[in-house]
Amino acid sequence: MSPTPDSAAVLVIGNEILSGRTRDANVQTIGSALAAMGIRLREVRIVEDRPEAIMEAVNALRVRHQQVFTTGGIGPTHDDITTDCIAAAFGVEVQHHPEAVRRLTHYYGEAETTEVRLRMARIPLGASLIDNPVSAAPGFTLENVHVLPGVPRILAAMLPNVLATLPGGPPIVSRTVTAWIRESDIANELAAVQADYPTLDLGSYPFMREGRFGTSLVVRGGDEQAVNAAAAAVEAFLRARNAAFEPPLG
Amino acid sequence: MSPTPDSAAVLVIGNEILSGRTRDANVQTIGSALAAMGIRLREVRIVEDRPEAIMEAVNALRVRHQQVFTTGGIGPTHDDITTDCIAAAFGVEVQHHPEAVRRLTHYYGEAETTEVRLRMARIPLGASLIDNPVSAAPGFTLENVHVLPGVPRILAAMLPNVLATLPGGPPIVSRTVTAWIRESDIANELAAVQADYPTLDLGSYPFMREGRFGTSLVVRGGDEQAVNAAAAAVEAFLRARNAAFEPPLG
Repeated sequence: MSPTPDSAAVLVIGNEILSGRTRDANVQTIGSALAAMGIRLREVRIVEDRPEAIMEAVNALRVRHQQVFTTGGIGPTHDDITTDCIAAAFGVEVQHHPEAVRRLTHYYGEAETTEVRLRMARIPLGASLIDNPVSAAPGFTLENVHVLPGVPRILAAMLPNVLATLPGGPPIVSRTVTAWIRESDIANELAAVQADYPTLDLGSYPFMREGRFGTSLVVRGGDEQAVNAAAAAVEAFLRARNAAFEPPLG
Repeated sequence: MSPTPDSAAVLVIGNEILSGRTRDANVQTIGSALAAMGIRLREVRIVEDRPEAIMEAVNALRVRHQQVFTTGGIGPTHDDITTDCIAAAFGVEVQHHPEAVRRLTHYYGEAETTEVRLRMARIPLGASLIDNPVSAAPGFTLENVHVLPGVPRILAAMLPNVLATLPGGPPIVSRTVTAWIRESDIANELAAVQADYPTLDLGSYPFMREGRFGTSLVVRGGDEQAVNAAAAAVEAFLRARNAAFEPPLG
């Protein structure tokens, strides 16, 4: 295990992910961005658009992790219930937030700022807004829970505005060695490198490409020098096996 | 809510998903396949390759859902700990399964069936094997927990072998109407259709494409006639708004 100054969880709220209609993209976006600032994403839950499911999950995750990110369910339609569920989980009221109302009114214009659109200005009391540079409707942070939309491009644009408020550590770095060898052929050598570098995570991910078997060998950790040394040790045993491999991709 | 004869959960075991290195594909594969046989995927958890995390999650999910599918961590390397964790969660031993040994030996040949490869024949006592038509190493079913590999192509090839053993209901069908309108413009009409069809799930999923805002309106449920009628009601209010839309894509 790498040293982790912080741990994080993601709660994906969305029937469309569970039904298979949509393939989630936000977990990867958030996981990568957190790793780059030294925060390890340790757990993800995907739940239905049901109040009990959302409240139970957010209450479980917010006591176990330093940071929790939720995605989805903060739009203006009947199935957008995240804001009310988060507020209920914390036991606080939801009100139209003056600054959120101002932003939506500025974005849509007075005439088009309908009651339905103003639903997106409903924010739990005590929460701070997360700026949305794409479509105005803000997310919010309530204690350690950061509530973001589900649309991947909007989430990606808003995420840096949350991350800038969090304490970070040294980035978690990784090196990938892609080898044209079956993982069962190098399992012992890999385990030996892992034993030599107990603070790092060594992962082995088999794949098939163009009918051939290969394995991505991934070294991850907070200590870049150790990561590089372990990746070199991986390359060394691949060379000793005469296995074709691609140099670290970073 | 649609009538659900069965509910299911997926447990994704994989640091590579949490770190952002890999974008999960298996949740979508499993969710779609389950919906086609009337089983609703209600919950997903993604956990680290840590015994406590895996055991806690599988024990929580297997009492809450009729079927649990795990993905990842059943290969031959040091980071493949799923089999042992599932066995520990159930309190049973792991042994080399004679039929699994036979399949691996047949696939690799006697000479190449190394001790490392035979790790993939270690199966919890009492489990039944799940056939792997791609690379021989089987998955297994222990009570209501179905243990599958993480490689998407292998998982997709093995999944039908599990699903064939499960009781199913009528498929959950869905109709999608893709409209070039912002969801806040039709939130009230959509809520009215939802109120008219309380047994169905109506979802609203905004998107941006080529700089334009649109919304996918999705009707889902177990009663195909009701789904078609609700989709027609959605089209009717879009026509009344003069909104461009694409007919149901199914």
